[in-house]
Amino acid sequence: MPPADGIYFEDVVVGAVLHAGPYVIPEAELTAFAAAWDPLPMHVDKAYAAAHGGLTAPGLYLLAVKFRLVHTLPFQNSVIASIGYDELRFHRPARPGDALTLELTWTDKRRSRSKPDRGIVAGRYTLNNAQGEAVMSHLDTVLMRLRQP
Amino acid sequence: MPPADGIYFEDVVVGAVLHAGPYVIPEAELTAFAAAWDPLPMHVDKAYAAAHGGLTAPGLYLLAVKFRLVHTLPFQNSVIASIGYDELRFHRPARPGDALTLELTWTDKRRSRSKPDRGIVAGRYTLNNAQGEAVMSHLDTVLMRLRQP
Repeated sequence: MPPADGIYFEDVVVGAVLHAGPYVIPEAELTAFAAAWDPLPMHVDKAYAAAHGGLTAPGLYLLAVKFRLVHTLPFQNSVIASIGYDELRFHRPARPGDALTLELTWTDKRRSRSKPDRGIVAGRYTLNNAQGEAVMSHLDTVLMRLRQP
Repeated sequence: MPPADGIYFEDVVVGAVLHAGPYVIPEAELTAFAAAWDPLPMHVDKAYAAAHGGLTAPGLYLLAVKFRLVHTLPFQNSVIASIGYDELRFHRPARPGDALTLELTWTDKRRSRSKPDRGIVAGRYTLNNAQGEAVMSHLDTVLMRLRQP
């Protein structure tokens, strides 16, 4: 159980694992998102996609699903900013109806040298499908507040 | 000028640079996107954000803007799939009204060893603001079709 006031820098334990989800991909949400931001036929054209195993989710949509699942974890008061992502990989297609779960493993933490109220926290995020196969994974580095600077 | 039928593997020249944009961030689009996917106060709460220089764009929204600008370049027929991103960094905040331009520099290309109809193409994408400062950058690796396999 995370602390009642949310997860702060002090609560991050390198090696610990958090889970969120599942999130079942709604077809209408996927196609509307793709139409707005990444309208390739494989994402928006059901007839075209039928010959290729069906519609696939844009990578950007999978990142969006990751954010939606992250927001079910109690970071809202502590994340200051995202520094960036590394090693982001799209391992296999995700499609409408797939139930995606998020696995987060903390990989690193250190205090900021210049600002005593914050630290730098890194984690590996993986979206898995219902078969337990990785769909997307990346390393994520954020600035996070200390509860008690 | 790109070829009339679009950019295929053969057209990628390592070191060449492409440009797209500008895209001016609409405040309503930014806040609606953030409300759906990353509803942190710095992205959705104008009163909260006023004390911090104003609303900032979620990193995910900046990636979405990158996709919208990429779709003004003629890759639609040739991109098969995204392999992944590396070294994605959010360098400085972007805010409503900012005019973002995309700069793409091809960094690598090679034929697929197993499939003769495609190759692997890498590029560095940078979103710049109107002051020419980098807002976001990353390396992007995609599978791209050959025009004449």
